[in-house]
Amino acid sequence: MNDTLGSWKRTHYCGDLRAEHIGSKVCIMGWVQRRRDHGGLIFIDLRDRTGIVQLALDPDRDPEAHTKADRIRNEWVIAAIGTVSPRPEGTVNPKMKTGEVEIEISELRILNQAKTPPFMLDEYTDVAENLRLKYRYLDLRRPTVQHCLMMRHQVTRTVRNYLDEEGFLDIETPVLTKSTPEGARDYLVPSRVSPGQFYALPQSPQLFKQLLMVSGFDRYAQIVKCFRDEDLRADRQPEFTQIDCEMSFVDRDDVMDIMEAMIARVFKETINVELSLPMPRMAYAEAIDRYGVDNPDLRFDLELVEITDIVRGCGFKVFADVAGSGGMVKAINVKGGSGLSRKELDDLTGFVANYGAKGLAWVKMTADGWQSPIAKFFQPEELRAIEQALGAAEGDLLLFVADKPATTNQALGRLRQHLGQKLDLVKKGDFRFVWITDFPLLEWDEEQKRHVAVHHPFTAPLDEDIPLLDSDPGKVRAKAYDLVLNGSEIGGGSIRIHDQAIQQRMFNLLGIDDEEAQLKFGFLLDALSYGAPPHGGIAFGLDRLTMILAGTDSIRDVIAFPKTQKATCLLSEAPGEVDPAQLRDLGIRLAARAKS
Amino acid sequence: MNDTLGSWKRTHYCGDLRAEHIGSKVCIMGWVQRRRDHGGLIFIDLRDRTGIVQLALDPDRDPEAHTKADRIRNEWVIAAIGTVSPRPEGTVNPKMKTGEVEIEISELRILNQAKTPPFMLDEYTDVAENLRLKYRYLDLRRPTVQHCLMMRHQVTRTVRNYLDEEGFLDIETPVLTKSTPEGARDYLVPSRVSPGQFYALPQSPQLFKQLLMVSGFDRYAQIVKCFRDEDLRADRQPEFTQIDCEMSFVDRDDVMDIMEAMIARVFKETINVELSLPMPRMAYAEAIDRYGVDNPDLRFDLELVEITDIVRGCGFKVFADVAGSGGMVKAINVKGGSGLSRKELDDLTGFVANYGAKGLAWVKMTADGWQSPIAKFFQPEELRAIEQALGAAEGDLLLFVADKPATTNQALGRLRQHLGQKLDLVKKGDFRFVWITDFPLLEWDEEQKRHVAVHHPFTAPLDEDIPLLDSDPGKVRAKAYDLVLNGSEIGGGSIRIHDQAIQQRMFNLLGIDDEEAQLKFGFLLDALSYGAPPHGGIAFGLDRLTMILAGTDSIRDVIAFPKTQKATCLLSEAPGEVDPAQLRDLGIRLAARAKS
Repeated sequence: MNDTLGSWKRTHYCGDLRAEHIGSKVCIMGWVQRRRDHGGLIFIDLRDRTGIVQLALDPDRDPEAHTKADRIRNEWVIAAIGTVSPRPEGTVNPKMKTGEVEIEISELRILNQAKTPPFMLDEYTDVAENLRLKYRYLDLRRPTVQHCLMMRHQVTRTVRNYLDEEGFLDIETPVLTKSTPEGARDYLVPSRVSPGQFYALPQSPQLFKQLLMVSGFDRYAQIVKCFRDEDLRADRQPEFTQIDCEMSFVDRDDVMDIMEAMIARVFKETINVELSLPMPRMAYAEAIDRYGVDNPDLRFDLELVEITDIVRGCGFKVFADVAGSGGMVKAINVKGGSGLSRKELDDLTGFVANYGAKGLAWVKMTADGWQSPIAKFFQPEELRAIEQALGAAEGDLLLFVADKPATTNQALGRLRQHLGQKLDLVKKGDFRFVWITDFPLLEWDEEQKRHVAVHHPFTAPLDEDIPLLDSDPGKVRAKAYDLVLNGSEIGGGSIRIHDQAIQQRMFNLLGIDDEEAQLKFGFLLDALSYGAPPHGGIAFGLDRLTMILAGTDSIRDVIAFPKTQKATCLLSEAPGEVDPAQLRDLGIRLAARAKS
Repeated sequence: MNDTLGSWKRTHYCGDLRAEHIGSKVCIMGWVQRRRDHGGLIFIDLRDRTGIVQLALDPDRDPEAHTKADRIRNEWVIAAIGTVSPRPEGTVNPKMKTGEVEIEISELRILNQAKTPPFMLDEYTDVAENLRLKYRYLDLRRPTVQHCLMMRHQVTRTVRNYLDEEGFLDIETPVLTKSTPEGARDYLVPSRVSPGQFYALPQSPQLFKQLLMVSGFDRYAQIVKCFRDEDLRADRQPEFTQIDCEMSFVDRDDVMDIMEAMIARVFKETINVELSLPMPRMAYAEAIDRYGVDNPDLRFDLELVEITDIVRGCGFKVFADVAGSGGMVKAINVKGGSGLSRKELDDLTGFVANYGAKGLAWVKMTADGWQSPIAKFFQPEELRAIEQALGAAEGDLLLFVADKPATTNQALGRLRQHLGQKLDLVKKGDFRFVWITDFPLLEWDEEQKRHVAVHHPFTAPLDEDIPLLDSDPGKVRAKAYDLVLNGSEIGGGSIRIHDQAIQQRMFNLLGIDDEEAQLKFGFLLDALSYGAPPHGGIAFGLDRLTMILAGTDSIRDVIAFPKTQKATCLLSEAPGEVDPAQLRDLGIRLAARAKS
């Protein structure tokens, strides 16, 4: 039988007790981390979310408490009253925040017992993740995981305070909403009141936040759950959280200025890192040219160098053919990388193959010149031109990809990011931000044989590119911006189209005729015709931002109750079967059942 | 063709300009509230979320701007640069915050045009609500509606700051979760990855917040969307927002103390009302006895008085029969109410009939004694005993209900709240809070022939009532508490069961055997067995709290994009039909289609 809490009130958290409390009578409550007996005394390490403090039970001081303590096992929940005392000479533990003191217990209550946990609750648990997720409430007792969620709390608090100070209004948008045309796959919710009809869970509050601007709220912000029913990658969850903002009467710089200051505030208040502002801004075309990707990791150089013109007439047929047929030849110079083994080079070739590159040519720069299978195909002046373009010197490793421009950039850009990790080119605790701007507005979809929006159909074109909408839509640049940190996109947004006629033209370019546009986006087009201000916004992925700040590489560490890659919750066993009566109410049947 | 924003940056909001800005060059942007021409000048009232300022356009100062202004219509979006100037003598408008100044415009840009809105956007719009909801983005331009949403922002900000200071961690719980046994009807979400299985949207994060306590997070808070697929009443929405809290190592008083201080902070920071703490606390039995209901409006007296014993042997058969057969006779004394007409008394009789009362007896106290159809049935000493019990005096109106105790209390209690409104007994701006405690843990459900939980199955019984769980479960009181404000429940919670054995007994009392309990609540029972601390919490309805603070009586005023009573969004037309391919992906079919 457990003791009740009765009239006891906790006076302190375990981890807060210090030498300054010596002599105080305290009442603390928590979980038994460890019990040990030593010379007739019982010592208990008591844990709560703040840390651990040592309790000492002496049978001479209170035989009853000592007897009770004798029964106690790990993870039992207890409350104790006692006096904070200095630890005896030689037993001070400088590794613990509370290591100078212990509590001499005079009264003890056992509030709850605990079975032996299915895994150790230490910081370095190396347990199958499925077991941890099934017993998530135990996994969440580990200080490292608690740290991640406390970090998340700090991030959201800082973000909310900043946005409030800047005049953003926290306004909730619907969760039961309408299916998104042009988006990813929606989660659907059958309606009972209107059988055969469905709500959709929002992929983002995009249209609602634009409508709030049309309403004149001027600045909107919300930390909001969004949903995508997509096949999950390691770092994706079916429900995820965005820091979602929208502002009126602004252009791109206004949004970027105010948002990078928010990020700086978050870094300062959570991990005490001062970021220097403004953050650099780079056009998409430059990012692709120098880094091959639109999310470059700027913690290291290793830039891509184009040598198409140099190799156009060379004797290496692969390069010459690509250069002669509208393709692109690029290379990176891995400084001091000539020591890589043949096996390692094969692995890198395999790596670029994942991105569609048909091969990876390599050159080791030795005292004797090029050591490379392709050296023999080049004239001396070509060798020198390539060396010069790449700044090659003895000991370097040159890596080449020749392919269609998109493939060359993608493959070599990804290889660059990969080598940054593999060769340890990144300094721990280095945070390199860059805004990528001037994205293309549209890209051609080969499968659908039509243009699709690179961001979404509401993104505004650059003012000076508007005439190209008719003449060369693929060339139109968008008023879009992504914030990239250490090679990860942590947020993105755009100035939106606020002119109804341009929005209609945009839909047409995406192959949506006026009738379909009215059907799918009628309320947006209507809203734009009743006095929409210029506006734009951004959304940051809270999960990823928190991961970076907490220094973890699993998204599941920063979500209290995450789902697996099969979108199941191992704890609650969601999703699950439901009562057939519930389905009848909703007017739906399971397809398998309908067949039989 | 509209002008672009170009490099213009807004310097001030419209409503912020004052005499102190006279002489400043400003750039403002907003919506045209009104344009008028006066002696060759054009005046524009420009509006943004902060208010309205007057622009003056003089053709002599800038002919181009003046010409542009001539085209402008209401609700067009413009930007203007000009100099803040004192209004000419005699044109100062003391009713406007900006009434001392106007802006002499030197440059003007038309950022967007606007069709004539389908209804007037003034503060007193008396338009069919369906039209307002269809054009919600226009309805939201009205200052009264904007005020409600700004109030909501202030409430959430104050709540979050307070809870953060008090050590509550903001932790998100899942939206895609498991169907709730024992709850209201869930919204379901079919799973694509696991066909035939469904997620449910949470009715509350109840179990997750309890698990967070088992994890040792100690204090949790979240402002969170919850969902119930119920037939909607006027003040209900399918998705609603709760201020959801949970604390460990606490008893009832700890939760009530910390939460009433939060409410006091909210009232102070939003409407500058000082509440006196602690708030009164009243046991459920006393509330029923004195007010007939568990959500009494304490802004007025009009208490219920039981006269069962007095009328037990009286000559009025209705009273005597009820008193003699375990029923209850109660009355209220409407001071000075004897002037009510026969029609009004009939209406009151109709009112109590809605709550199952078979009749409403009445007595008008006149100089000549009782004027009442039932006067003749009573002996003089019975009349006097009743008068004395009710403190009746000349001019009063006595109203009686005789029925089963539950019906008598409910009917007369509701009548009391009704009369409080009808007779104007409530003082505007009076806020009377009361905590109702010691609710019954269980109530008997005649239909299901079993006990059901009054709050939910996780509510702890009073320690001293635990033995009654076996002997007389209907008598067990719960560690539950509701906060009632002016007759509305604004929040409720309880101390939870943290002992696994008691939780299991509770399930048994609800007719859930061990096997079913393990199936439905296995993860909770498991969690309770691994070291659960004593814990409890509360949830407040943010929508209703905001309604009270904003002084509105429609829940739709405090929700940006509300749904109708048919759970539809007239703006986005959700719910809607979806592509059959989407249903195929999910493995479901429409029942109607399956039949054909």
